[in-house]
Amino acid sequence: MIWTIIGILAATLTMFSFVPQIFRSLRTKSVKDVSPVTLFQLSSGVMLWMIYGIARSDLIIIFANLVTLVTLSILIFLYFKYGLPAGREGG
Amino acid sequence: MIWTIIGILAATLTMFSFVPQIFRSLRTKSVKDVSPVTLFQLSSGVMLWMIYGIARSDLIIIFANLVTLVTLSILIFLYFKYGLPAGREGG
Repeated sequence: MIWTIIGILAATLTMFSFVPQIFRSLRTKSVKDVSPVTLFQLSSGVMLWMIYGIARSDLIIIFANLVTLVTLSILIFLYFKYGLPAGREGG
Repeated sequence: MIWTIIGILAATLTMFSFVPQIFRSLRTKSVKDVSPVTLFQLSSGVMLWMIYGIARSDLIIIFANLVTLVTLSILIFLYFKYGLPAGREGG
């Protein structure tokens, strides 16, 4: 029971962790310090975690990663909306 | 077996997902578009995931979140090293 609460707390914190980043990017309309590699790598990983959660029949893992994936997709959309900075080297 | 591989892949991708962000921040010495709220919220969540993994005796969850926590700590250090941008409103 206590571990379920810990799991729900962990899931809530991590799955909404990119919401402040979304609001910051929306406000500043600047994403040049954000690494696109991090965004794509994390999205791929989160997608696999979701599949892993399905295999383990762990609803918390499935749901948490689904929400994270949605917020990361919004962030990737914003990354391209606010444009690739001039002279970027990637990373 | 296939799920263990999926889990290891998921863990590898997510636990090292902030490494590109670390290198980008080191190169540009600028972190003003990175949300500190996201960094702290994610670190707290990842810490709780680690505790959850210990409760579920899931070594992949424990190890993946431990590595993520280390990389996030480096990023938080860099965030403060490269200074809080002037006139920041938080978020």
